[in-house]
Amino acid sequence: MQIDRIDGRSKDELRTLTIERGCNRYAEGSALIKWGNTHVLCTATVEEKVPSFIRGSGKGWLTAEYSMLPRSTHQRMQRDSSRGKINGRGSEIQRLIGRSLRAAIDMEKLGERTITIDCDVIQADAGTRTASITAGFVALYDAIRWLIKNEKLTENPITTQIAAVSIVKINGQMVIDPCYEEDSSAEVDSNIIMTSGGNFVELQGTGEQGTFSLNELNEIAKLAWEATQKINKIQQKALCLTQEEIEAIKK
Amino acid sequence: MQIDRIDGRSKDELRTLTIERGCNRYAEGSALIKWGNTHVLCTATVEEKVPSFIRGSGKGWLTAEYSMLPRSTHQRMQRDSSRGKINGRGSEIQRLIGRSLRAAIDMEKLGERTITIDCDVIQADAGTRTASITAGFVALYDAIRWLIKNEKLTENPITTQIAAVSIVKINGQMVIDPCYEEDSSAEVDSNIIMTSGGNFVELQGTGEQGTFSLNELNEIAKLAWEATQKINKIQQKALCLTQEEIEAIKK
Amino acid sequence: MQIDRIDGRSKDELRTLTIERGCNRYAEGSALIKWGNTHVLCTATVEEKVPSFIRGSGKGWLTAEYSMLPRSTHQRMQRDSSRGKINGRGSEIQRLIGRSLRAAIDMEKLGERTITIDCDVIQADAGTRTASITAGFVALYDAIRWLIKNEKLTENPITTQIAAVSIVKINGQMVIDPCYEEDSSAEVDSNIIMTSGGNFVELQGTGEQGTFSLNELNEIAKLAWEATQKINKIQQKALCLTQEEIEAIKK
Amino acid sequence: MQIDRIDGRSKDELRTLTIERGCNRYAEGSALIKWGNTHVLCTATVEEKVPSFIRGSGKGWLTAEYSMLPRSTHQRMQRDSSRGKINGRGSEIQRLIGRSLRAAIDMEKLGERTITIDCDVIQADAGTRTASITAGFVALYDAIRWLIKNEKLTENPITTQIAAVSIVKINGQMVIDPCYEEDSSAEVDSNIIMTSGGNFVELQGTGEQGTFSLNELNEIAKLAWEATQKINKIQQKALCLTQEEIEAIKK
Amino acid sequence: MQIDRIDGRSKDELRTLTIERGCNRYAEGSALIKWGNTHVLCTATVEEKVPSFIRGSGKGWLTAEYSMLPRSTHQRMQRDSSRGKINGRGSEIQRLIGRSLRAAIDMEKLGERTITIDCDVIQADAGTRTASITAGFVALYDAIRWLIKNEKLTENPITTQIAAVSIVKINGQMVIDPCYEEDSSAEVDSNIIMTSGGNFVELQGTGEQGTFSLNELNEIAKLAWEATQKINKIQQKALCLTQEEIEAIKK
Amino acid sequence: MQIDRIDGRSKDELRTLTIERGCNRYAEGSALIKWGNTHVLCTATVEEKVPSFIRGSGKGWLTAEYSMLPRSTHQRMQRDSSRGKINGRGSEIQRLIGRSLRAAIDMEKLGERTITIDCDVIQADAGTRTASITAGFVALYDAIRWLIKNEKLTENPITTQIAAVSIVKINGQMVIDPCYEEDSSAEVDSNIIMTSGGNFVELQGTGEQGTFSLNELNEIAKLAWEATQKINKIQQKALCLTQEEIEAIKK
Repeated sequence: MQIDRIDGRSKDELRTLTIERGCNRYAEGSALIKWGNTHVLCTATVEEKVPSFIRGSGKGWLTAEYSMLPRSTHQRMQRDSSRGKINGRGSEIQRLIGRSLRAAIDMEKLGERTITIDCDVIQADAGTRTASITAGFVALYDAIRWLIKNEKLTENPITTQIAAVSIVKINGQMVIDPCYEEDSSAEVDSNIIMTSGGNFVELQGTGEQGTFSLNELNEIAKLAWEATQKINKIQQKALCLTQEEIEAIKK
Repeated sequence: MQIDRIDGRSKDELRTLTIERGCNRYAEGSALIKWGNTHVLCTATVEEKVPSFIRGSGKGWLTAEYSMLPRSTHQRMQRDSSRGKINGRGSEIQRLIGRSLRAAIDMEKLGERTITIDCDVIQADAGTRTASITAGFVALYDAIRWLIKNEKLTENPITTQIAAVSIVKINGQMVIDPCYEEDSSAEVDSNIIMTSGGNFVELQGTGEQGTFSLNELNEIAKLAWEATQKINKIQQKALCLTQEEIEAIKK
Repeated sequence: MQIDRIDGRSKDELRTLTIERGCNRYAEGSALIKWGNTHVLCTATVEEKVPSFIRGSGKGWLTAEYSMLPRSTHQRMQRDSSRGKINGRGSEIQRLIGRSLRAAIDMEKLGERTITIDCDVIQADAGTRTASITAGFVALYDAIRWLIKNEKLTENPITTQIAAVSIVKINGQMVIDPCYEEDSSAEVDSNIIMTSGGNFVELQGTGEQGTFSLNELNEIAKLAWEATQKINKIQQKALCLTQEEIEAIKK
Repeated sequence: MQIDRIDGRSKDELRTLTIERGCNRYAEGSALIKWGNTHVLCTATVEEKVPSFIRGSGKGWLTAEYSMLPRSTHQRMQRDSSRGKINGRGSEIQRLIGRSLRAAIDMEKLGERTITIDCDVIQADAGTRTASITAGFVALYDAIRWLIKNEKLTENPITTQIAAVSIVKINGQMVIDPCYEEDSSAEVDSNIIMTSGGNFVELQGTGEQGTFSLNELNEIAKLAWEATQKINKIQQKALCLTQEEIEAIKK
Repeated sequence: MQIDRIDGRSKDELRTLTIERGCNRYAEGSALIKWGNTHVLCTATVEEKVPSFIRGSGKGWLTAEYSMLPRSTHQRMQRDSSRGKINGRGSEIQRLIGRSLRAAIDMEKLGERTITIDCDVIQADAGTRTASITAGFVALYDAIRWLIKNEKLTENPITTQIAAVSIVKINGQMVIDPCYEEDSSAEVDSNIIMTSGGNFVELQGTGEQGTFSLNELNEIAKLAWEATQKINKIQQKALCLTQEEIEAIKK
Repeated sequence: MQIDRIDGRSKDELRTLTIERGCNRYAEGSALIKWGNTHVLCTATVEEKVPSFIRGSGKGWLTAEYSMLPRSTHQRMQRDSSRGKINGRGSEIQRLIGRSLRAAIDMEKLGERTITIDCDVIQADAGTRTASITAGFVALYDAIRWLIKNEKLTENPITTQIAAVSIVKINGQMVIDPCYEEDSSAEVDSNIIMTSGGNFVELQGTGEQGTFSLNELNEIAKLAWEATQKINKIQQKALCLTQEEIEAIKK
C-alpha cells in the first residue's frame, strides 16, 4: 500500500540524521545530534561520587537530565526555573533516558563514580527523547574512553550498543520516525530502545487516540529492529568504532 | 516447568484482589482497592471547568494525581511538600494513570468538565500504579453514573473497560502480578493496560537488569490478556454492571 | 434547657467513636480513628536519630505531620505539593499535635530517637485535630510497646494518657464534639487536650464570632473533663490496657 | 509569697512598654512597640480588594503577616526566603494575630476592602506575638481613622479594644509578661487576648513542661485581666483616645 | 610597554568573534555567537502582550532571560530548576541584558507587544554577558525585521546599535576581552555597553581585587570605544545592514 | 546655571543623613541610617564558619542580604517568602553590597570566619543601596572592633573606608543623592562606591532614558568624590574614629 507522508518519506525511512561528536570543550563526552529539525546537545559528565543509596557498594551510577530551551518550540515555553512547578513530561523523559543508558553499562566495572548525561533540546520537531538516548549513548561512550585514557578504568564497562526510535500509527498505518505534524496526529505512539543485537531495552506503546492490537505491537517491533540497525551504524561512524569494538558491544 | 514463587502462587495467579466502591462520602466516585498488601484509595472529582488549552472546544478532560502516604512503605518517606523537589517517579506514574483513563472516555460526550482521579497509596507492596488504574476506572465509572443521575449527562461517555497488570521476569521466567520481593529482583518489568476487548491501551516494558526478546514480549502480551480478563470481572462485580453494560464497553 | 442539635445528640454526647489499632503493616504503631464522619489514619514511625538541636543530649524527640487527602472534604482541595505555598492551617495543626503528644512522654527515658506521628485525614467532618491527637496517642503507645518488645527500651517513657475534644458555643449554648454544620456556625470554638488525671495539656479557646467570658471558660473546662474521660476509655479498650497500665499513666 | 524574678519585677508587673504611633510615612496606620527589649514595627495597609472567598459579600477582611529580621535574635536566623521551607512557628503566630484583630472589627461596616497588618520583629526578647497584637490594634485604629478622614467610611467599624499578654508558670508560680530567660524555662506558657471589657478573644495555654489545673487556668485568667487593663491604657494614650472613644469600644 | 597575554593577543585585540544569524527555525530572531570559546545562543520571541504595569499605555516591553547549560563550564553546574534557590549571578546578568537592549528601542514605536531575548550559554570562557548583549542585539534586529515584513510595524523602533565588551586590569595593565584565565585573576573588572555613536548605555566597573582611579576609568572608556567599534562591524555584517541602515541607528 | 530641585537643594547637596550606631542589642555590629526619608537597619553578624569554596584556605568571607519591609514603599509589596519567585532587583542589590564591602577588608587577616551584613529597608525614598553600603561599613567596622575586643583578632583587617552615593541626570543636569521623585524621572542613573582616598570600588552608570557621554561620566566621578568625602565624615563621627584610625584606612 502506498503511504503519503507529509515530507515524502516512505514508511520505514528515517529523517536525515547526523551526530557530531566532541562538540563541547569541557565535558568528558559530548554529542550534538541533528535528526530532521530536532537538535539535541548531549554531554556526559564524570564525577567521582555516587548517590547515597549505593555508596560503599563498589558500583557506579548513571543519571540523565533533560530540558528544552525556551524557544526550541513553535511557541516560547517558560523555563522550569520560572514556572516553579513540576514539569511532569520532562521528568518522565529524563527517567526514561537514564534507565535506557544504565542498561548499556556494567555498574560494577564502572566503579564508584557517576556519569550524568545532560540532554538539552536546542530545537524540537518530534523525537527529542529518542534523539537524546541515541546521542546520549555516543556521549557516554566517549566519556568511557576518557576514563580509560586517563587510566581511571582498564576495562570498558559498556556492555551493549543502544539506540532509540519512535514509531506511530497514522491513518491506520505504522510509520517510523515521525516529524512534528505526524506525531501530533498519531493514533498510536511508541518509543522503542533496542540493542544492536536486536533485544529490547525499553518499549513504550501508547494508544493516544484509540488502542492497538498484538499484531500491531509485532509490526512496531519489526520496524523498530530495522530502524535501530540503521541508527546504530550512524552512531558507530560518529564514534569511529572498529569492527572489533562494534562486535564487543553487540548483544 | 515448576515455578517457586515466594508466596506459593502459580505464575499466572493474581494476589487476592478486592475493590470496595463508594468508600468516600463526598467524592462523585470512589474505590478502595486491596490488591495483596497494596491498598490504594481512589476518588473521582467532577468539576465544571477545563484546562485553558481545551477551553471552548466542547471537550472534557481527565487528569490524575498519585501520592504515597509517608508510611505506606517499609521505611518512612518524606512528604512531597516537605522535600521541596520534583518527585520524578510519582510524576511519571500519575501521567500514566491519566493517559490510560483518558483512553476509556469519549471527551466530546463528556463535555466541558474535568474529572480528577486522586490515587493515594495507603500501603504499598508492589503494583501501586496498576492498582491505581484498575480502581481509578471504577471510581471514574461511578462519577459518570453520578453525572447521569444528576442529569448533567444523558449518554455514557465511557467507551471501554480498562484494567492494568504488572508482569515481570524472575530467574528467567515470566510471572504475573509480583509482590514486593519479586518486583525488587525482577530482570524485566512490564506494566500493561488493556481493554476488556483485548487491545492495548498502554504497554511499558523495561529491562531493569538486562534486556528482553520479541518472544518474551509476546509472552508478556499473552499473560496480560489472561490476567486483565480476570481483573475486569472483579471491576464489573464491584460496579454491579449488568451484562448489557459490560458489552457496551467491550472493545 | 433543651438543646436542638442537628443530629439529635444531647449537649454532652460524643459522636460515634471507634479506634482500630494496627491498621498499617509497616509502621511501629498505627491507629485508624472513625469519629462521626471524620476518619484519620495515624502512624507512628521510630527512627534512631534526633534533630540537630538535641543531638548528644541523651533525649528523644517526637514530631507530627498533618495532611488532608484532596477529596477528604466537600470540595476537592489542591495538594500541598502542587499549591507551592505555605498551608498555614495545616502547619498550625501539626504543631499542636506534636506539642500535645510530647507532653505525654519522658524524653530522657525515650533516649536519642525520634517518633514521627503522621496524621492523614481520609475524610473530614469537623474535629480532625482532636481525632489526630486522640488516635496519635494510641499509635504512639503501640510504638513504645514495639520498642520494649524489641528490647530497645526497658522502661515505658509514657507518663500520661491524653485525649482531645472540641467544644463550641452555638446559639449561646456550649456543646461538645460538633459536627461540620455545627462547627461552621460556632460563636466560640475551643480545643482542649487533657490528661486522664484531669489536667490540661493544652487549651485553645477562640471567639470566632464574638468573645467569651470567664464563666464560659469554666463551663468549657467542665465539659472537656467529662468528655475526655469517655474518650480515654475508648483508647484504653483499643490498646487493651490492663487496669495497672491505666493507673500507671493517670496523672 | 516572695517571687524572685530575674529582672526584679513583681509577679504582676509589666516590663517597660511604649508605643509610638505613626512611625511609617506611607502606611495608613503604623505603630512601633518597645516592650522590654522586644521591638516590633506594625503597619496597617488598606487595599480596595478582598480575597475571592468573600468577594461580593459586602464584607471586608483583615489579615496579618509576621516575620522576624534575621538578627532580631541572639543567633542570626536564616530568612524565610532563603530557607525555602515552611516556617511553622511564624505561620501559627500570624494566624493568631489575624484572628485576634478580626475579632475587633465589624466586617460589614468595614465594607469590601482588606486591611493587612504587617508585624516585623526588629528585636526579640519574648512576647513578640503579644506585642504584635497590642501594637497591631493601634495601627489598625489609625488606619480606620485614615479611612474616615478620607471619607471612605462614615462609621467606625471597630467594635472592641483588644490587647494581649503572656503569662507563664516558673518554679510553680504564675508571673506575667516574661522576659526571654523566664520564657525559656516556663513550665506552663499562655497567651491571652482580651477586650477592654474583660472578655476573652483568644486564650492559649500550653503545658510546655508538664500540665496545668483548672485552678491555675483561673489564676491565669485573673492575671490576664489585670494586665490587659494596664496595656489598654497605654494603647489609649498612644492613640490619644477621648473618654467617649474609649467607652465606645469597651465590650 | 609589552604585554604578555596568555593567548598571545595584544592588549586591544579581540578574541575571534563570529555571529551566525537565523540559527533557530522558530524564533522571530536568533543569533549564535562564538566569541573565543564562549558560545551563546540568543533568540528573540515576539508576543502580542505586555506586563500589567504598562498595559494600556500603548508602549511595548523587552525582557531578557539568561541561563547556562549545566556543562557549559569546566565543572558541571546544577540546573536552576533542581537547585531550588535564587541564582543571584544569573538574575543580575539577565537584568543587565534587558536594561541594555531596552535602551536600543523606542517603546512607543514598538507598540503593545513584548520581545523576550533568551540567552542560553552553550559553552563559557569569560564574557558571557557581553556576548549575550552583542548577539541579543542581532536577534532583536531580526525580530523587528520580522514584524515589519509581517506588517505588524511600519517603522523601525530601533534607535541605536549597541555592543558590549569586557575590560580588565591584570598585573596593573588594562586589556580588552579577557579569556577565562585572565578574567579569574583580574584586579579590576568592567563591562561596558556602548552605542555605535560612542555613548555609554551602561558602564559597570568593579575593583575585584583592589580599586581603580579616575585615570583608569578613562582608559577603560577609551579601550571600550575602540573595541565596540570593531564589534559593531561584525554585527552589521551578520545582519547584512546597508550603509543607510547603519547610519540610521548611529547615535 | 540654576537648578530647581523638588526639595530646594543645590545640585551637590546631600539630603539630611544621620547614622545611629549600636541600635541592635544582639548583633556584633549594627547601624541605623536615616538618609532623607530612606531608613535602613544594618546588622553585622560574625560566625565562625566559611562557605565551602574557601574552607581550609585560611581566608574569611563577607556576604550581604538585602530586603525591604512590605510597607517600606508607597504601595505595599508582597514578601519574598510569599511571592515564591526570584526577586531579581533585591538579588542584584545584595550582590553589589557584598562585593563593595568585601573590597574594604583583608580576608587573610580576617581569618576563617564569615561576616553577614543584613540590610533591611524600613522605609524607602530612593538610595536604599547606597544607604545600605554606607551604613553597612559602619556595622562592619563595629563587628571588627568586637572581634578585637574579644581577642579573636589582634590586627584590624579593614583596609579602606568606603561610602556610596547615587548621582542622576535630570533635565540634562547632573545632581547628587536624588529623592524618590527625582530618581523616578532620571535620564541617567549611577551609583558610585568610593574609598576615602578617592578611588573607585564600584561604579555603575545606566542610561535609563537615553545614554551618557565620556564628559558626563567624568562629571559623575567628580561629584561622587566630593559627596563621598562628606559621607565619610558622617561615618567617622558615628564610629567615633580617631584621626589616626581615619588615616589608617585612607587609601
